Amino acid sequence: MTSAADPQPVRLLYLEDLSIGQRFRSPPRMIEAAEMMAFARDFDPQPFHTDMDAAKESFFGSLAASGWHTAAITMRLVIDTLPIAGGVIGAGGPLSWPKPVFAGDTLAVEIEVLETTPSRSRPERGSMVIRILTRNQHGDVVQDFTPRVMLARRASVSPP
Amino acid sequence: MTSAADPQPVRLLYLEDLSIGQRFRSPPRMIEAAEMMAFARDFDPQPFHTDMDAAKESFFGSLAASGWHTAAITMRLVIDTLPIAGGVIGAGGPLSWPKPVFAGDTLAVEIEVLETTPSRSRPERGSMVIRILTRNQHGDVVQDFTPRVMLARRASVSPP
Repeated sequence: MTSAADPQPVRLLYLEDLSIGQRFRSPPRMIEAAEMMAFARDFDPQPFHTDMDAAKESFFGSLAASGWHTAAITMRLVIDTLPIAGGVIGAGGPLSWPKPVFAGDTLAVEIEVLETTPSRSRPERGSMVIRILTRNQHGDVVQDFTPRVMLARRASVSPP
Repeated sequence: MTSAADPQPVRLLYLEDLSIGQRFRSPPRMIEAAEMMAFARDFDPQPFHTDMDAAKESFFGSLAASGWHTAAITMRLVIDTLPIAGGVIGAGGPLSWPKPVFAGDTLAVEIEVLETTPSRSRPERGSMVIRILTRNQHGDVVQDFTPRVMLARRASVSPP
């Protein structure tokens, strides 16, 4: 398990560097009310995401982040944690938000490699399935996403 | 099928107003390079999302939106199209991005109601499963999301 306190790998990662069961952990990130409301005004303008008072009367009982804001912050934490050579392109997968994210929560991401697959037709590429758990400061899972993502193989830059 | 050209329902929708097979269509929305790059700088800072020149050399061949930006714009189009009373809270579901979104693409959303379920324990609430297809100006599906969402029952405001 790699954590913010451990030395981070600085070399770029290719498919060959990733194996089933490998885990990575992001640094924590606090999510503030102002950014939650700004994101929601643009993309998810519902009162429990944009208005402190209305949120108190809602299902959530307090200002809650749009799930898409949680997803976007999760993506940023993944990018900051996994230095994939040439970038990582998601194809999608099952996504859920088991608990709300409230203003002032601190999120961190755990990534586990579930599967790695070289492309059969393109020797320079492959894909992997990763599970990305986003937890709050209490350890509760606030987002669970298991995408297949495409990435480069080392073969692509150093052919035999 | 409700479209931007048809009169939109102005009354708020409750679970009772929604039935299996019902469809809704959003107005179109263009996505510009500047907003794609701004979103990606915050949440998905990979060169094919943030840099025109780097994007040309990438898998995509041209500046492409972060899938999370596509998802966020889709959410906004859903909110603008389905006036759910008290708001709609997503629990998640399968999410995929079958094709990229490029700068200048125009997106629109089709929503189909797949299932409606009153809550057994809470008479004022229920849930539904909807399929949300996001298409570009060519009709290609760029995002396919089938979430379960929670919403209010009319019973909650006008009990017998």
